[in-house]
Amino acid sequence: MSETRLSTEKVFSGRLIGVRVDTVRTDSGREATREVVEHPGAVAILPVTDDGKLILVRQFRYAIGREILEVPAGTREPGEADEVTAVRELREEVGVEADTVELLARYFISPGWCNEQIAVFRATGLREVGSQLDQDEVIELVTISVDDLPALIASGDIADAKTITAILLHVRS
Amino acid sequence: MSETRLSTEKVFSGRLIGVRVDTVRTDSGREATREVVEHPGAVAILPVTDDGKLILVRQFRYAIGREILEVPAGTREPGEADEVTAVRELREEVGVEADTVELLARYFISPGWCNEQIAVFRATGLREVGSQLDQDEVIELVTISVDDLPALIASGDIADAKTITAILLHVRS
Repeated sequence: MSETRLSTEKVFSGRLIGVRVDTVRTDSGREATREVVEHPGAVAILPVTDDGKLILVRQFRYAIGREILEVPAGTREPGEADEVTAVRELREEVGVEADTVELLARYFISPGWCNEQIAVFRATGLREVGSQLDQDEVIELVTISVDDLPALIASGDIADAKTITAILLHVRS
Repeated sequence: MSETRLSTEKVFSGRLIGVRVDTVRTDSGREATREVVEHPGAVAILPVTDDGKLILVRQFRYAIGREILEVPAGTREPGEADEVTAVRELREEVGVEADTVELLARYFISPGWCNEQIAVFRATGLREVGSQLDQDEVIELVTISVDDLPALIASGDIADAKTITAILLHVRS
């Protein structure tokens, strides 16, 4: 299975994302249009304390118009290895360094129309070093237990793919 | 925590997505730019056979340039209830009807820049009725076991958020 690009048009180039509209020929020989959002990728890191608690961040998300509780995360910097981004976000947002950082999974967020890939890590052996938030970042740290997950999903406090995935993968591995 | 919209500019209106660039005032009083992708939302449905196997679909995804194995899913139709979309996708892509359809979770795919929300269902008590694919859809049905998940993630065959989330939530509930 594949699709051949016949033409491409860049319709938006932003600071974070780009958008193109491609015309393709499908396997069945038909012409079709594909809207594609280009994203540099993201990294998330789940900090697990020595007593097994999880540290999440509560922040306002403009795109969805409310606050949610998320695993710490950031956009990948050009040329930066995922693990380096993860460690940096951990220090900046949570104010900790970690003895061990492990990859839990790497996956696409919505492969039907977007190339954003996210790498999800777990951090253990945490040491406090003090957070270094960007001037524009307003976040609150919240410590939860793994057992809180169903109730926090039901209440809508936890409401995004990377956070649910990170916690469920952590529990299984 | 909140951000106040000062201005908004629609920069793209496609068949599937729209993109706007908003200027906001943050809690700390600064002006900032927010790129927002508007998406109608999606529905995924995990079909579980009577012997506990999972039915996935293998299809080519142009945005990421390769085939992956995914839980059956589709874009929400305007005004259609999630569960109705789920049942329709199940019939069209997998060719089955289900005795029971349960919501596993509803979450945002990437709340930092996109309002796409996905509702993930589980279908049990399956009865074959014959698939009804759109002319443009080329998919292959693949039946897996829950225990195959780690190997399929490691191999990159399973590589998207909704599929990983659906299977992990199914295992836990």
